Amino acid sequence: MSVTIKPDQSFFHSLADIAGETVLPFFRRSIVIENKEQDDFDPVTEADREAERRMREMIAGTFPEDGILGEEFESERLDADGLWVLDPIDGTRAFISGLPVWGTLIGYRHMDGTHMGMMSQPFTSERYFGDGKQSFYVGPDGKRAIESRSCASLSDATLFTTTPTLFNEQERAAYDKVEAACRLPRYGVDCYAYCMVALGMADIVIETALKPVDIAPLIPVVEGAGGIVTNWQGGSAFDGGQVVASGDKDLHEQVLEMLTSG
Amino acid sequence: MSVTIKPDQSFFHSLADIAGETVLPFFRRSIVIENKEQDDFDPVTEADREAERRMREMIAGTFPEDGILGEEFESERLDADGLWVLDPIDGTRAFISGLPVWGTLIGYRHMDGTHMGMMSQPFTSERYFGDGKQSFYVGPDGKRAIESRSCASLSDATLFTTTPTLFNEQERAAYDKVEAACRLPRYGVDCYAYCMVALGMADIVIETALKPVDIAPLIPVVEGAGGIVTNWQGGSAFDGGQVVASGDKDLHEQVLEMLTSG
Repeated sequence: MSVTIKPDQSFFHSLADIAGETVLPFFRRSIVIENKEQDDFDPVTEADREAERRMREMIAGTFPEDGILGEEFESERLDADGLWVLDPIDGTRAFISGLPVWGTLIGYRHMDGTHMGMMSQPFTSERYFGDGKQSFYVGPDGKRAIESRSCASLSDATLFTTTPTLFNEQERAAYDKVEAACRLPRYGVDCYAYCMVALGMADIVIETALKPVDIAPLIPVVEGAGGIVTNWQGGSAFDGGQVVASGDKDLHEQVLEMLTSG
Repeated sequence: MSVTIKPDQSFFHSLADIAGETVLPFFRRSIVIENKEQDDFDPVTEADREAERRMREMIAGTFPEDGILGEEFESERLDADGLWVLDPIDGTRAFISGLPVWGTLIGYRHMDGTHMGMMSQPFTSERYFGDGKQSFYVGPDGKRAIESRSCASLSDATLFTTTPTLFNEQERAAYDKVEAACRLPRYGVDCYAYCMVALGMADIVIETALKPVDIAPLIPVVEGAGGIVTNWQGGSAFDGGQVVASGDKDLHEQVLEMLTSG
């Protein structure tokens, strides 16, 4: 009988360290970013790939039986008991605009239900980690357990979305209803928005067309802080697509109702 | 004959230090922000007022003859030779959402044409300073002179605006033309956007309905880096209103043309 060794928080920090070291030298370098669909050399994509390669190497060295789902390379062993989900630079548009609201995302899910995740922002030295039970913050102002805030009504809510232009027509109509009911809508933030919900600084994130690597690592961060992340139908958000995250579970129900009531 | 003593960079840093010490403890505290138009106690406004009060006190102690134009209190001696322009928290919406893209703005203009300004972001420990000739950056990744980047065509440009919903109908039509021609539009950033232009990470900022305190301190930061800031008609942006900032002077002409060609 084999004993499953699970990763602990320090292993996530080691992965985040190696990704940060690789990626940070490319932040705020004046470089032309080529379209990912072109074949041209693109230093940000190179940094992205190198960071993922180094994280995969570290995982393979310590947890060789685990699977890996990443942004930049082919998936490995998706049917393994433990699965790593990696996105070295989530928020490429923020990254290339010089804004420190991008992050490295590292997620881990085990067949037994364990789900952990980290967001690391190396320029501001912030990390947000959910271990499946609780969520923790480390940053320039210290280290602490974090909790999302309660928000009884949409009229008190701060809402984040990357940009409303990403929604299709039907999604946009649904999103616009929610936005119109909120106190403060904010655009232009990717993974950082989920961390602000976990930190109790914002209430809702609504997005669409997410890939699993964009959201799977953030679910434990939000849920460990007392919030909830689902798809627009209330099911698992692990596989991406249409995603809603809320700091308050009752508010979440209200948002789902508005998004799906047609 | 009196000799005019002018402030130097270290005096700006002292003002930024005192503002940062006052304001930072209120960042990411879970607090309800009341509308500024209400009479209720609002801790962020209190921090804002206290920071401005302490900066005014420091200015009065060192440059007692100078005028002061601030966000939170009555103007003093607007006809003085030297005028300070202060905004302790520019980007209140970012501040209350937990995003580190707000800043303390400190500007100084002398009748002789001297114009200096600083943006200080105390959470990330970044400062952007223009002394009227050059611009400088200090941050977690070091200290250096900064230069805006050249950008020959709108189709290569990164464009910032706080949010397009702030424009009136006519402004929105003009703005939308420019946005449609740009490579990457970004929303949700106030003073930080101008610093990204100065840093060579973005190309254009277009805004409207700015107050003098929102823009006067940022003009030297952008212009010392080689960029330009004007109103939409190409005149001085010191008094706020409709503002355009560009890292590339030729691109600026193209943007003004599009904004005013009806």
